[in-house]
Amino acid sequence: MVSKYSEVPCTRLSDGIQRRLLNRGGNLMLVEFRFDRTPQLPTHAHPHEQIGYIVSGEFEVTCGDETVLCGPGDSYNVPADVQHGVRLLTERGTVLDAFTPQREDFLE
Amino acid sequence: MVSKYSEVPCTRLSDGIQRRLLNRGGNLMLVEFRFDRTPQLPTHAHPHEQIGYIVSGEFEVTCGDETVLCGPGDSYNVPADVQHGVRLLTERGTVLDAFTPQREDFLE
Repeated sequence: MVSKYSEVPCTRLSDGIQRRLLNRGGNLMLVEFRFDRTPQLPTHAHPHEQIGYIVSGEFEVTCGDETVLCGPGDSYNVPADVQHGVRLLTERGTVLDAFTPQREDFLE
Repeated sequence: MVSKYSEVPCTRLSDGIQRRLLNRGGNLMLVEFRFDRTPQLPTHAHPHEQIGYIVSGEFEVTCGDETVLCGPGDSYNVPADVQHGVRLLTERGTVLDAFTPQREDFLE
């Protein structure tokens, strides 16, 4: 049930974002997104509930009608089906996202 | 829906552990535990599913019959009602825990 970071596969998304599915089980999934050189995750929505956590870097976080500058330790709660996205303001940045239920689309 | 770390209340547990309820909503909750000077969170169980993530420090993580040395980026998945705990091996360390459903006992 322990997952070592060094053994987690990395999925390179097309726009300079690395996604690592850190761990999952039951109704929970934890995913890391690493951003390099000012890309952004465009605003989107999904039926999964989500809490995001800024590990490093500065991001502009949009969730519904709210857009807030966030740094390390800050977090954001995304209810099901609410539009949300992040935009990197520093050269690099890392975000953790917890989802319930699991993002089965990330397993494909 | 954004929670700034600087505004999150800190609950000081009796054994040198600080708990911060970073964010919550729907069926999700994200909690930070900061450990100072080799305390441990004794083995325990709860009906909530959990994924833990090591932010900093080195921990001995026990989950069921498994005990594994974990460092930054490593994570552990705890099914409902499975005994688990962590023991700090460095002077300080920080862990994030995602729970579903929410730990209502942390709101008291």
